[in-house]
Amino acid sequence: MNISARNLLSGKVTTVRKGAINSEVELSLDGGETIAAVITNASLEEMGIKEGMEAFALVKAPLVIIAKGNTGLKFSARNVLQGTVKKIAQGSVNAEISIQLQGSGIITSIITKGSVAAMALQEGDQVSAIFKASSVILAVKA
Amino acid sequence: MNISARNLLSGKVTTVRKGAINSEVELSLDGGETIAAVITNASLEEMGIKEGMEAFALVKAPLVIIAKGNTGLKFSARNVLQGTVKKIAQGSVNAEISIQLQGSGIITSIITKGSVAAMALQEGDQVSAIFKASSVILAVKA
Amino acid sequence: MNISARNLLSGKVTTVRKGAINSEVELSLDGGETIAAVITNASLEEMGIKEGMEAFALVKAPLVIIAKGNTGLKFSARNVLQGTVKKIAQGSVNAEISIQLQGSGIITSIITKGSVAAMALQEGDQVSAIFKASSVILAVKA
Repeated sequence: MNISARNLLSGKVTTVRKGAINSEVELSLDGGETIAAVITNASLEEMGIKEGMEAFALVKAPLVIIAKGNTGLKFSARNVLQGTVKKIAQGSVNAEISIQLQGSGIITSIITKGSVAAMALQEGDQVSAIFKASSVILAVKA
Repeated sequence: MNISARNLLSGKVTTVRKGAINSEVELSLDGGETIAAVITNASLEEMGIKEGMEAFALVKAPLVIIAKGNTGLKFSARNVLQGTVKKIAQGSVNAEISIQLQGSGIITSIITKGSVAAMALQEGDQVSAIFKASSVILAVKA
Repeated sequence: MNISARNLLSGKVTTVRKGAINSEVELSLDGGETIAAVITNASLEEMGIKEGMEAFALVKAPLVIIAKGNTGLKFSARNVLQGTVKKIAQGSVNAEISIQLQGSGIITSIITKGSVAAMALQEGDQVSAIFKASSVILAVKA
């Protein structure tokens, strides 16, 4: 792959809601989950995004939050994907967490080593990968 | 805590402004500062966010910019919190900076080692932690 | 410089489009490229941003995606800047990539080591630096 975003999820556009500056686009992933993206209207028009179209959702790994077990909280982030921690690669400040999604595909998240320790995060843990609709870049075949 | 976002600030909703796609929510922190968040209307409604409600602002550490002294600039980022550098943990590429806020609480920022060097950033420095309203996730008790 | 954002690009405001909550601002860089930013209306008014004004676009390095060669995709991200990889600094989890822009100036991106490997990214490669309009903070002289 020649793009640096670790997270490239394939799906189909199901809903387009247009505002004055931004539009909200919903994508039904091949694995079954739904992803919401907020993009500018200029991008929506340039890409010709319409319901039924095939598209990809891209998310940079540092924008993905991980929650483990019951946080007792409801989040404003539109995207909450369930999965299992597959691999933890520790660096000196950050750690890279690979999450096998329930539907299909893998989501990568970069969190601090401090968060890994505070959560006692381990391979095999059930987690949620959480990210904002505004963190999602949409892509379509050129 | 079972959530990977290092920055979870507690407060009360003071203002809600609704647009076509997004809403802007202002939170008055327990420490006295004000935080602005932009979230989708869908999230606002699902969470039932109203003025007077208790809520949390979450910000991922890589989204927090640090400014030291007088930059001579005004920023479009809505959130500018004053504090003191408490700890600098250096990695090979990134550094994790813990900032003790004036009000209360700690904000963590991930910046490059290059930025630490360029700013000659040291423990004890007076700094601002800067982040966009669109970088904030809101959470409420479930 | 006393600000931690590695990417501070100087230019002139060419367009302002106002929505209910957010505004879209276009900046023509000194190097010739165009940058789009989405900021809140509250910021737009506080800063007094108008067409013709000098301004800076700030982008945090972890928000910059890198694409190499032809991806066969069109992206919703408004900002796509062409350049050449000048330097790759590898850490244990992340890598810092410095890109010499075609126009002028340098853009820094933080991507995972895994992405560097998957893309076989090397110094001298022709790449695009891609980031969303909502990832941009605008600054003006105080």
